[in-house]
Amino acid sequence: MPWHSSPNADAAVTRGKSGDELHPKTLNKNAEDEEKNGPGPRVGNRFSIATMNQASVAMKYAVRGEVVQKAAEIKDRLAKGEQLPFEYLVPCNIGNPHAVKQQPISFYRQVAACCMCPSLIEDSSFPADVKSRAKEYLDATGGNGVGAYTDSNGIALVKQQVADFIMRRDGFPAKLEDIALTTGASEGVKRCLAALISDSNDSVMIPCPQYPLYSASITMYGGKSVYYDLDEASSWKIARESLEKACEENPTVNMRSIAVINPGNPSGAVLELSDIEMIIDFSFEKKLVILADEVYQENVYLEGKKFHAFKKVLVQMQQKDAKYNQVQLISFHSTSKGLIGECGQRGGYMEMVGFSQRVLAQMTKVAATSLSSNTIGQIFVGMMVTPPKEGEPSYELFKKESDAIFEGLKRRAIMLTKGINAITGLSSQPIEGAMYAFPQITMPKRAQSEAILKGIPADNLWCLELVEKTGIVCVPGSGFGQQDETFHFRITILPPDDMLEGMLVRLKAFQESFLAQYKDD
Amino acid sequence: MPWHSSPNADAAVTRGKSGDELHPKTLNKNAEDEEKNGPGPRVGNRFSIATMNQASVAMKYAVRGEVVQKAAEIKDRLAKGEQLPFEYLVPCNIGNPHAVKQQPISFYRQVAACCMCPSLIEDSSFPADVKSRAKEYLDATGGNGVGAYTDSNGIALVKQQVADFIMRRDGFPAKLEDIALTTGASEGVKRCLAALISDSNDSVMIPCPQYPLYSASITMYGGKSVYYDLDEASSWKIARESLEKACEENPTVNMRSIAVINPGNPSGAVLELSDIEMIIDFSFEKKLVILADEVYQENVYLEGKKFHAFKKVLVQMQQKDAKYNQVQLISFHSTSKGLIGECGQRGGYMEMVGFSQRVLAQMTKVAATSLSSNTIGQIFVGMMVTPPKEGEPSYELFKKESDAIFEGLKRRAIMLTKGINAITGLSSQPIEGAMYAFPQITMPKRAQSEAILKGIPADNLWCLELVEKTGIVCVPGSGFGQQDETFHFRITILPPDDMLEGMLVRLKAFQESFLAQYKDD
Repeated sequence: MPWHSSPNADAAVTRGKSGDELHPKTLNKNAEDEEKNGPGPRVGNRFSIATMNQASVAMKYAVRGEVVQKAAEIKDRLAKGEQLPFEYLVPCNIGNPHAVKQQPISFYRQVAACCMCPSLIEDSSFPADVKSRAKEYLDATGGNGVGAYTDSNGIALVKQQVADFIMRRDGFPAKLEDIALTTGASEGVKRCLAALISDSNDSVMIPCPQYPLYSASITMYGGKSVYYDLDEASSWKIARESLEKACEENPTVNMRSIAVINPGNPSGAVLELSDIEMIIDFSFEKKLVILADEVYQENVYLEGKKFHAFKKVLVQMQQKDAKYNQVQLISFHSTSKGLIGECGQRGGYMEMVGFSQRVLAQMTKVAATSLSSNTIGQIFVGMMVTPPKEGEPSYELFKKESDAIFEGLKRRAIMLTKGINAITGLSSQPIEGAMYAFPQITMPKRAQSEAILKGIPADNLWCLELVEKTGIVCVPGSGFGQQDETFHFRITILPPDDMLEGMLVRLKAFQESFLAQYKDD
Repeated sequence: MPWHSSPNADAAVTRGKSGDELHPKTLNKNAEDEEKNGPGPRVGNRFSIATMNQASVAMKYAVRGEVVQKAAEIKDRLAKGEQLPFEYLVPCNIGNPHAVKQQPISFYRQVAACCMCPSLIEDSSFPADVKSRAKEYLDATGGNGVGAYTDSNGIALVKQQVADFIMRRDGFPAKLEDIALTTGASEGVKRCLAALISDSNDSVMIPCPQYPLYSASITMYGGKSVYYDLDEASSWKIARESLEKACEENPTVNMRSIAVINPGNPSGAVLELSDIEMIIDFSFEKKLVILADEVYQENVYLEGKKFHAFKKVLVQMQQKDAKYNQVQLISFHSTSKGLIGECGQRGGYMEMVGFSQRVLAQMTKVAATSLSSNTIGQIFVGMMVTPPKEGEPSYELFKKESDAIFEGLKRRAIMLTKGINAITGLSSQPIEGAMYAFPQITMPKRAQSEAILKGIPADNLWCLELVEKTGIVCVPGSGFGQQDETFHFRITILPPDDMLEGMLVRLKAFQESFLAQYKDD
């Protein structure tokens, strides 16, 4: 039985506490905190750990969890000149390409600079297509520029560019009213989960392993995460049996939705066309809204593998059988990944397929309470889906820069898989796509006992020792979900070649010392 | 009895439905929508109005509500060349200065352009302080630039600049760990409300009239809004009696927090020092977290009026009496208002005063699920609180531009008050600060009957007719809360002088025709 499906005896304590999130340790911490908040009757209603929303307290978000906090402490110590066995941290915990030296693509930044400061359209030496593109976006704001709120769902021109992109990608049109620009993909995912979840029985199927945005948000909104297993032995393949099993094991929940991450985070797997057809048919049968997290759609590296958009496959199935018109699909995309890697711009979009006008209006109303996503981030979405065309002045440089980024990612995906598989006690499936390896650690029994003593999962222990001894920042597998008695970590392929090579040397040395330290008797 | 405190018979239907938000009309609409979603058993679990989170459905957000939708339709008709009695819309529904011709301040945009495209630091003819400031911010990202996620609570340098600003403003220091950069102020407010509300008995005191972000978010998070009345006759003054009364009338709720908007939105009132002392003492006594919405802190126009920060007043009170150390205060600020008016950048910060390290850590964890607010928006926060200093190359232009914006706002605050008070049946309190008038409409009985027939509040009817006949977009008072049998609308002071003058002419003519149309027999 996977660790995450262990029964939770006190599910009634709070709205929103999904079984896997609350740990006895947390409860003890709450009590301690209460003491520190001061004695007396006032404590009851102050904003303390005990009186704040318990779903928030129970929620875990490993990508920026304990290991990252430890890394921040180490960074401070390095900054203060403390002598450590390494001179710098290697942040492999998060898909943040520009933080590990990936250079921004010039065209995007030049257009953005012109939008920020329109006098550059006249004054600067930027290429003509940069200037005309900037002018196009500024006109599309009705002349308001990037300092004004836009429509709640974003600038119409950018939505049109997204629709055109989807048409080119899939061969099928997208409706403008189905598209909403969001603050990165994360905010779109959250907005949808919040709308899907009404009470603690409302459940969302998420992969095991998954990206913790899903488990964290489902917990915060008071729903239940139901995990379906990806099969590590077959490169994290998704099988209908595992979807069926997840439903059978949770017969009393109100299953609302299934989240699918393709290419997979953290698994690195790229779904086959037949996998997607299977998931769509399953979702039709179970009446589930499909949340298709497709932010890594440009990140496919393995020869013979190809990204298939859920939207495309759905329309193909609808053309063969009208029953699939009833399927509801929300697809997410982002400026943070792909080759653009512009995480800091917080650009994203979602396409909602198969929803009534009234539901779309409700979603727009919810979006309106945030007014709009940042305007320049919206423009980055437009640029991402509408890069310079062959023959335009910026094309050559754009192609050179983006090809170099893609080739680098592909090279390092291979380098990392190979490097990890050469280390005793670590094994990685091939990285087919996305930006991560999710290797398995053969965990010595003594390390497991040590972890139990410390009250933390054994892969937390491993990752904490790793960052302390080498400066390499990874995320423990327990933050993503994994089969019981297996241990993993997620590591990005993003550091530049020399840094990645050095990192593999450090990782090998660390793992050898770890195995020596926890050698079973 | 104010309209908002009418009892709600079916409060048990959903989590999160606060009494004032659900309208019989909504329920009918749900049923209709169900029909349209198609027949058969599948309807039960599809994502429809009936199966989505009912708190979201019940939530209302007037600032982008029915009147704004009508305005969007009219805009389309104008774009298609349809002949209407006016040639353009006057968007007075929202504090979005750049949408009504306020020009961005050059320094801010030049620095932002350099951060976007660092080659401009070498290449452009921007002033030296622009270039050095851009370099400072880029260095503060650890060299990652604006394309990388930052720390969850934002760039340390910007937080330091915020702390320095608070010190200069109040004469008291701010702690770095108490400051978090947010996606505009809205996202900060939402994050805090979500943490404060655990169940439908958790309540937040909000002013009547209020900015609907508060009522909308409280409804979405499943809590209850308890309104306290501002006294229109005395320029929307806040009296302790009205706070006490709101508590007395709601004896069984779990009162968690009080939101105060100063300068007031939509009221335009600026609180006196003694008002703030009273609110702090009241909050101490009732153990309420103070949410101080201070986004209009630079927007004070009336002679003799002065902005006092809640933080400053709290520390002064703590110095006299240590019991106030127990008060918990969260203050919000934003790049969207003030003189900078950069709504589209979605920059904001909050300062959390009086919270334990553990609570701050929980709030950081929640922030981390959004990774970070957009980097350039964070830099706008830094610039807003650290404008060019006297003697620096950009200072003269900066001062000229920002003075012109301030003088324009002040001039139009007076012009609008005067203009409205010269129209029969409309009356406005003086606009002391912020960006709005909230005039009262003496509503003819026949218009009230007509509105009842149409199933909408009478001020909705008035605003809908206004936009149809004149193109002026305002927000009905019912979206903010108002005393029973009073009617208001919110209108911004933002359009440039000539547009505002023309708008007042149209408004006068409209009101005369409205009064003629609905003349009581």
